[in-house]
Amino acid sequence: MTKRGMLFVLSGPSGVGKGTVRKALFEQEDINFAYSISMTTRQPRDGEVDGKDYFFVTKDQFKKAIDQGQMLEYAQYVDNFYGTPLKYVNDTLDSGQDVFLEIDVNGATQVREKMPEGILIFLTPPDLLELKSRLINRGTEPIEVIEKRIEQAKQEILMMKHYDYAVVNDKIENAVENIRQIINVEHLQVKQVYSDYEQMLTINEKGEAK
Amino acid sequence: MTKRGMLFVLSGPSGVGKGTVRKALFEQEDINFAYSISMTTRQPRDGEVDGKDYFFVTKDQFKKAIDQGQMLEYAQYVDNFYGTPLKYVNDTLDSGQDVFLEIDVNGATQVREKMPEGILIFLTPPDLLELKSRLINRGTEPIEVIEKRIEQAKQEILMMKHYDYAVVNDKIENAVENIRQIINVEHLQVKQVYSDYEQMLTINEKGEAK
Repeated sequence: MTKRGMLFVLSGPSGVGKGTVRKALFEQEDINFAYSISMTTRQPRDGEVDGKDYFFVTKDQFKKAIDQGQMLEYAQYVDNFYGTPLKYVNDTLDSGQDVFLEIDVNGATQVREKMPEGILIFLTPPDLLELKSRLINRGTEPIEVIEKRIEQAKQEILMMKHYDYAVVNDKIENAVENIRQIINVEHLQVKQVYSDYEQMLTINEKGEAK
Repeated sequence: MTKRGMLFVLSGPSGVGKGTVRKALFEQEDINFAYSISMTTRQPRDGEVDGKDYFFVTKDQFKKAIDQGQMLEYAQYVDNFYGTPLKYVNDTLDSGQDVFLEIDVNGATQVREKMPEGILIFLTPPDLLELKSRLINRGTEPIEVIEKRIEQAKQEILMMKHYDYAVVNDKIENAVENIRQIINVEHLQVKQVYSDYEQMLTINEKGEAK
């Protein structure tokens, strides 16, 4: 039996640079993830191919997929739906390959519920770490702006609580390196490799019994 | 309040190369662990300093320390006791510094019981991974030798089960790099950094209230 791949989810507050970090990560030579094809109700743009760039479906089809529990996660932006089909992710994981998703925080919450074994990485803005010193040192901002910032930071922190790892996006190469290490180290976990050793010995014994 | 350091434990079957890997790891520039001073009942050798190389104690003192629960882990080799004092490790962790222990598998089991938050890394011999192909390909060894090897491998695997990570010691530099990454990635865990963010915001708010 092929060992199931691992699901990695990169998420974080809007504007933190998830897409840039994901692209830089995928450009690394030794990174080999299955490309997860999203489903959408928006119209294909010039050159976009159904089943390659997106699964293009109607709103009725998308809503039906949601109702039937076929979406790992989805979101609605303006008038259109975007989401990750559960079957595609499951089939890829079953084939032994890892899957990497870059999605918004609502999507990540849905993944946590539907696939709790997924590894959730929260990309944090560096200014969240610098917030304290900035606010104290400047002391120039109106109290309501400071309060709004603190409130926003708090909301972000509340979301981080449900994640496995927090990676600061201070420099893209640092964030990429930390995510690479998370992926490597997750594969070193005993719960990941133990079955390999067990299976190896079982096969040996069967081989001996012949 | 200073954030408590993390305890990393490197262990594995006798002869796997724990000491060599630990030395190579400690030679890395950016590695900064507290050196854990062991307690022993053996006589000091020339040049060894009490409280620096070892805490040298009598057997009665050592047994009393065991009885009073003052040892994080200990072992008896031939006629002498060797072990890690709990207070030293606790004080170092409380000061915010990480502690790295290289101990045998019995010691690691004791650490798991007394400090379940410790990160246990199991160093595996590369031949354990190669066992299957070697046994199948050669087919030249007497059945009792093969059975003994499988039995030994099984015992090793049983121990691995209680660890967090498995690192193959195929090449020292690979093992060192993987352990370095484990240490880094453990510090990226949300459960490690969450309090920093929380604390930061609490301080900000207090700052505002002035």
